[in-house]
This record gives sequence, C-alpha cells and structure tokens, in this order.
Amino acid sequence: MLSPELEGRLGELTDLSATGALLGWDQQTMMPAGGGEARANVMATLATITHERQIAPALGALLDAAQPDGDLERAIVRVARRDHDKARRVPTELAAEMELAGARAQEPWAHARATNDFAHFRPFLEKNLELRRRYVDCFEGADHPYDTLLDNFEPGTTTARVREVFGRLREGLVPLVAAIAAAPPAPVLPGPFPIAVQQELALELAHAFGFDDASWRMDLAVHPFAQSLSPQDIRVTARYAEDSLQGLFAVMHEVGHGLYEHQVDAGLGRTTLGTGVSLGIHESQSRLWENLVGRSEPFWRHWGPRLRAAFGEAVGELSEGDLLRAINAVTPSLIRVDADEVTYSLHVILRFELEVAMIEGTLPIAELPDAWNAGMKDLLGVEVPDDTHGVLQDIHWAFGELGYFPTYAIGNIAAAQLWEAMRRDIAGLDDQIAAGEYGALSDWLREHVHRHGRTVEPAQLLERATGDGLDPAPLLAQLNAKYRGLYGIRDVEPGSSRRSRPALQVGHMLT
Amino acid sequence: MLSPELEGRLGELTDLSATGALLGWDQQTMMPAGGGEARANVMATLATITHERQIAPALGALLDAAQPDGDLERAIVRVARRDHDKARRVPTELAAEMELAGARAQEPWAHARATNDFAHFRPFLEKNLELRRRYVDCFEGADHPYDTLLDNFEPGTTTARVREVFGRLREGLVPLVAAIAAAPPAPVLPGPFPIAVQQELALELAHAFGFDDASWRMDLAVHPFAQSLSPQDIRVTARYAEDSLQGLFAVMHEVGHGLYEHQVDAGLGRTTLGTGVSLGIHESQSRLWENLVGRSEPFWRHWGPRLRAAFGEAVGELSEGDLLRAINAVTPSLIRVDADEVTYSLHVILRFELEVAMIEGTLPIAELPDAWNAGMKDLLGVEVPDDTHGVLQDIHWAFGELGYFPTYAIGNIAAAQLWEAMRRDIAGLDDQIAAGEYGALSDWLREHVHRHGRTVEPAQLLERATGDGLDPAPLLAQLNAKYRGLYGIRDVEPGSSRRSRPALQVGHMLT
Repeated sequence: MLSPELEGRLGELTDLSATGALLGWDQQTMMPAGGGEARANVMATLATITHERQIAPALGALLDAAQPDGDLERAIVRVARRDHDKARRVPTELAAEMELAGARAQEPWAHARATNDFAHFRPFLEKNLELRRRYVDCFEGADHPYDTLLDNFEPGTTTARVREVFGRLREGLVPLVAAIAAAPPAPVLPGPFPIAVQQELALELAHAFGFDDASWRMDLAVHPFAQSLSPQDIRVTARYAEDSLQGLFAVMHEVGHGLYEHQVDAGLGRTTLGTGVSLGIHESQSRLWENLVGRSEPFWRHWGPRLRAAFGEAVGELSEGDLLRAINAVTPSLIRVDADEVTYSLHVILRFELEVAMIEGTLPIAELPDAWNAGMKDLLGVEVPDDTHGVLQDIHWAFGELGYFPTYAIGNIAAAQLWEAMRRDIAGLDDQIAAGEYGALSDWLREHVHRHGRTVEPAQLLERATGDGLDPAPLLAQLNAKYRGLYGIRDVEPGSSRRSRPALQVGHMLT
Repeated sequence: MLSPELEGRLGELTDLSATGALLGWDQQTMMPAGGGEARANVMATLATITHERQIAPALGALLDAAQPDGDLERAIVRVARRDHDKARRVPTELAAEMELAGARAQEPWAHARATNDFAHFRPFLEKNLELRRRYVDCFEGADHPYDTLLDNFEPGTTTARVREVFGRLREGLVPLVAAIAAAPPAPVLPGPFPIAVQQELALELAHAFGFDDASWRMDLAVHPFAQSLSPQDIRVTARYAEDSLQGLFAVMHEVGHGLYEHQVDAGLGRTTLGTGVSLGIHESQSRLWENLVGRSEPFWRHWGPRLRAAFGEAVGELSEGDLLRAINAVTPSLIRVDADEVTYSLHVILRFELEVAMIEGTLPIAELPDAWNAGMKDLLGVEVPDDTHGVLQDIHWAFGELGYFPTYAIGNIAAAQLWEAMRRDIAGLDDQIAAGEYGALSDWLREHVHRHGRTVEPAQLLERATGDGLDPAPLLAQLNAKYRGLYGIRDVEPGSSRRSRPALQVGHMLT
C-alpha cells in the first residue's frame, strides 16, 4: 500500500498541473490583453514551485520507501520515480528561465508574424534554442541530443526510430500527393457558412461524440486547443471562419483530445497518472475523430442532410459524392493547421528535420527561413511567399517547445493503426457511424486507450491495442485506398510499406 | 535597497495570490459543475503552499536582514513582516483545518438554507466557531478576542472602535428608517427590463467609469463580485433579473472595486502591497460608485434619457423626480444583499453584534436564530418568517469568516467621508457627473486612495484623505439630507452625530 504522505505529494503535483492548465486555458480564452505581463510571472512562479515539489528529496525518499501492491501501485511508483528523476536533472533556475523565455517570446513572435519580420523574432528563438541545449546537457546517455526533447512528449521514442518511421511515411506520401495534384481538383463548397450556424452545429457534433455540459465547456480561441483540469472539467476551444468548414473539423479534433482525458479511469484521480500517456497517442485520438470518423463516407451519410439543412445554398447542389470529395479536398498548401489529411504529415516531417538540425547545431537560426522554404518546395512542391506564411506560422518554437511537432505525425500513424484494430473488433462500425452512433467506438477507445492513463507506456499501449509497434503502413494503405477512390487515381504505388498484411477493411470507408 | 531574494519571495506570494484569484473567479464563472470536486483539492493545495511560503523561515531571515531605503521599501518590509508574523502564529494544521471545515460546511449550509433547516447547519457552524476560537488563541495581547478576527479584514481596527462607531450609526439610522417607513412609498419602475438591454447598458456604464477592454472583463456569476489578477487584469461579474435594475447598480459597485485595483501604483506590482489596503476601504470604493455617484440626481440627469431610450415603457411615464425616487426606494427588508442604501448598514450592525457575542461565548449557536430574529425586529422593524430568509441567508459564516461583515458598513461610512472631502476639492463635481464625466473623480480617488495600495494603514489613509478618523456623521448627514428630500420628511433628527461641522455640500446631491 502507498503511504498517505506519498499519495499527498502526488495529489499536490496533480493539483499544480491542473492549476497550470487553468492558467494556460485562461490566457488563451479569457484574459484581457493587459494581463499578459503579470501572467508570465505567475506561470513562471507556478513552474518553479511545481519543479521544486517534483524534485523534493522528501518525494524521492517516499518513493524509495514505497511498497506498492498490485499493478496500479507499481505503475504509480514507476512513473513518479521517472518524473522525479528527470526533473532532478534540471536546475530549478533553468526550468524557470525556459518558462520565462517562452512567455517573453510570445509577443515578439506575434509581432514578427504580423509584420513578416523574422529578424525581430530571431533573438528570442535563439534564446529558446540555447536554453533547450542547456536542458539537453542535463541528461547523459541519450544516443542523440534530440532524444531528450522527444522523450518529454513521446516517452520512450528515439530520434532514430522517428527518422526511420517518418522516412517510410515521407516515401509513401510524396508520390500520393503528386498524383493527387495531377488529378482533376475536388469540387469546392461555395459557402459562406454563417459562424453562428457553425457554432450550433459544432455543439451538436460535440454532444454526439460525448461532450456533456456538466463536465465540458467550449469557448473561442485564436488557436483551437483542448485542456483538461480534471476528467470532469474538460475544456475545448474552437475558431470559425465564414468561408470554410475547417472549424467544425477542429472541434471534432479537440473533442477527440477531450474524450481521452474524460475517459481516464476515475481511480487514477490524483496519482499523476490520470492523463494521456503521450502527445502522440493523444493526437491519435483527435485525428481519429477528426479524420477517420469525421471525414468518412458513413459519417456524412448521417450528417450530410443536417449540413444541407443548416447551410442551404452554401453547400450548393453537390451530390453526396461531391460533398465527400469537397470535404476531403487535398491541396499542397503553406499552413500546417489548415492542411488536409494527406499533406499534414509532410508539414510535420519538415519541422522534425529542422528541429533535429537546430539541436545538432548544423542549422543556424539565421538560415532557418531558407531551409524552411527549401523543405516546403521539396516535400510539398509549394513556394513560400513570406515568413508569415512560412517559418513564423507556428507558436511552438516561440514557447521553446522542440520535440513536440513529431507527435502530430505519430498521432496520424497511430490513429490509422487503432482504426484498423477497431474495425476488426467492432462489427458493423460503418453502420453505426452512418446511424450517428458512436457508443461502441467510444467504448472501444476507453477500454484500449483512454482508461489506462499513464499506467502503461505509449509503445506498450499501442502494441496491446493493435498487436504492433508504430508502423506507417496502415496510414499509407488507408490514405491510398481512400484518395485513389476519391480522386479516381489508379496507378499510384501504395507507398513504401514493408508491411505485407493487407488493410482489409479500408475500402469500407468509401462504400 | 531590498535584496533580489526578498523581492523574489514577495513576487512569488503575489503570484500565488493571483493564482488563487483565478481559481476562485473561474469556479464562479466558467467551471463546469463536474469540476467542483477537483477544484476543492486544487484550492486546498494552493492554500497550503501559500501558507508554507508565507511562514518560511528564509523569508523571516530576509526580512530581518533587509535594509530598506525610503518610504516605499520601509512599507514593503513593515507589511511583509506583519503578514509573516501573523501567519507564523497559526499552525499549518489549524490553517488547513479552517480551510477544510469552511469548504465542508458549504453543502450543508446550502441544504439548510434550501430546506429552512438551521439544525442541519448548526454543527458545522459550531465547528467553524470552535476553530475561530482556536485561531484567536494563537494571538496574545488583543483587548478583545474579536479584534484578532477584525484585523484580518480591517487591519488596526478594534472591536471597541467599531462598537462605538456602529452605535452612533445605529442611533442615527433607526429613526430615519422609521420616518421613511411612515412616509408615502416611493414610486415603482414598472419593468420588465430585458436582460440583453441591461447588459448593454451595464457595459456602457462600466466604460464610462473606467472599464477598458484591454484590462478588464465582465462575466455573469450567481453572486456578483470583482477579482483582480493584476492591475491590468480586472474581472467583474454581474447578475441581472428582468424585474429589477439592481443588476446595473451591482455592476457600478463591482467596477468601483475594480477601479481601486486598476489604479494601484504600477511600482507596487509584485511587492504584495499592490492591492487594496482593507476590505472596508475597498467597500468604500464600490459604495461610492454605486450609491454616491450611481444613485445621485446629477447622475440620472445624464443617464435618465439613456435609460428611457433603452427600456421605453418599462420606465414608464415617471417624471425625473419620480424616477430618482424609484431608484432610491427605501424598504426595510429581510435580505442584506437586496437592501437599499439606508437600511443596509443596519443588516451589518446586526451581524457584528451577533459575531461578537458568539466569540465572547455569550450567545450559544442554538440560540442564534432567535437572536437574529429579535435583532431584525429591533433594528429594522421586520418579522423574519423563517431561517432561510434570516440567519441562513449569508455564505460568510459557512466559510467561517467572522470579522468580515463589519467592513461593509465601514465602507459605507468611509465612502461618505471621502465624498465630502472630494466635494471640497473638486469644483463643479455635480456638473461633471451630470455631463457623464468621471475623470476628475477617478483621478481624485487614484491620488488619495487607490495608488497607495497597502503602503499606508487604512486609518492613516482615511485621515490623510479626509482629515478625520472613521466617523459616521457625514454618512448620517448625507442620508438625512438626501432622503428627507426624496421622501418629503421634515421632522427627523439628523441622527446622534456628535460632530459639529455641517456637511455643507450634501444638499447638492438633490439639486
């Protein structure tokens, strides 16, 4: 049994994490602009206190003395020990400096983006990079310095492994994107889509997926995100534009994140394990709801009529097939967050490669914009007109968050693997989706993914749920099958997958 | 000069206080209901951490070693020393027990109030009282045990002083209330007042007083309140009902609180002195804007036409005089938060007298409801029909907050004193208010009250701003002049004021 003292300390860390979540959520949704300066101080103080409690020798002693009974208690002690050991490696001052520098870079980044002035942001990014290098130096024994950063977002994953998986993914995606680019373009939804109607529809979708008013809320934010304060306090945010339905898909995405946190076992409450196991697995949940459910044919069999009723002429006279093609239009483009299901991972691969080069020291920040533009040309075939639509588009580097981006593509890959497994396990899943019913799907995810929280490692979770390690083959197979069908392409190689098992059920998505 | 270590620790305490403010604000405005359980844990953890940092021996040592230069630094060290010493007197376990007992009493109190069942709440109140007695025992040398509680909300004030001041106030108010009750009643605004229109008008009023979107926000809450996260992050909340304009006055009240925090000197930022000096002085600001500005004749000369335009028939055919009388209707009633400007302080005096008796041990909790009902009859001439509309109405005792209530009436008294001083200093104040201009008023308050934060003691602040100590005479004189006019009463003694200086400018309020 774990001692009340140990449980108390882990509860405290859980509470501090929830406090940080609230400070962040509020900053993005509610805080008046003038509150930013004080908020940066408050967040730095909270980070300092959290770090101090995380590295407290008393916590280490309690973990040393712990005599866990059963799997759950063993998992609690194992993860708490790892968190404690990792945090102890980093001096409190460095942790605080990283937090502060990240907060201080926000305004210069926003200004640089607004004025297409990379030079204005450059010293802040250099500062962030320098601090991340010092952070990496706190850890020994990693095969690659970037491994240390990756581990914060995707525990147990290595740079070598990501490089290999992304290499296969890239190899499969580039020809598919090229083939789609050569095919006749998808039809376009005429629009406009009044925002109030989108908001109403987004809430309907969210409720259908599992959002309930007693435990969730939805607000507007410049960049949509999800935040969990507890399994019963889940906050998603949305952004809408009149000329696009992208905001609806963003809501499905964020609700996918929210459901993961909402369906974690209640028993993990204040153990520090009651949250998603990694950002990659988290992203698999958001992508699964956004793309594999939300952009599927059966889904639109159900929601298509509702969409037409809501927007009338804005949806136009499109047939069901054309509506589906419009929703799944693929266009190599400049902005990651607006990217479609097929090109998205290529945006991520670019960032991964640049981050590794920055950390290795082979890419000076001054050369980052050129490297960005060259990569976009190479991977997606697009010319970047300015840094605002290029290297300055994302907030992550302004926060100093290196190692984060890869998890987006890991999420796409894992989502496809889970989807394949789920389709083996759930009979008639398409029919359920076509009936607007998501109970069995949601239950499967709770059982195989959500409820475990951090009690198992990400790789172990994926292995247990799908029978495999991280593998881009199902994603490539699904994308090829789906988009060959939608774009009438007959001659594309199904990617570089070395995997032989056919993705049997994929065709169903388009039936 | 103060050491960076000391400044850092005071900054941390400021940040923790802002974090607590956000947790509280969010709980009352944004949090989904399901988040309540986790929030209670988070708030308890934050309170524990704050108390630990407040009593840290390292902080004491830094204060011992401090060599302050100039008035500001001396004030910082003086107040920090007092906060530290006060917190150290209280064992962490007792502080935690008080916090927990207060949280645990919330549900029983709400249940007791909903079911008119005082007995259900009684053991929780007894527990709170016992803990407050133990708290009082941690401090030696006070003339009266209640002094220790008062000092938490109104530093430096004593029970004897409050008793004397409240005695004079009571002596003056009771005959005025009786005379008003005997006069023909004020006209009534027909209503209804659509809530969306009220919200629009409330925002207009708030902006006129100094609310700006860069540093403020306004949200709905069940009980209106103001919360400051920093001088540039001020949050007020509002509640509206269709049958009353009370919500508009509540907004003026909360904006008054907010302006105080907004206009504290920026240099006090993270010193722990950058906030209101006491709850009484704080309440003087909210009451000043709500009553002395917001219920005055010149104010409605400006806003009356806007009110008629906004609500049309809901304001009816009332003349300007009748509109003013309707807005200033006085009715002895059961519920403090709904009380008018004249009767309000009597509700507070009752609570003060009962609290002192409880702490002295002369009033057993079992006899509290009877004492309450007798007091209401005595002070306001009303019969209390049940405990829901009597002793159970307020949340304060459920939190164990004894010593808080007196500050409401201290605020009324101080507001009248400041008003008198301000009218001496600002030429043509009425004309400015009648023109919808509040700049000079707001500047005067910044100069004499707001900017000082906690650098001076409440009594000193009042003395410097008004030339006097706390004195109910101006309030009684103003109320008598105003309500004699409004109600056509000619024969009321202007209270028991022993103060001889005539309140010359008071008559202007009605011109």
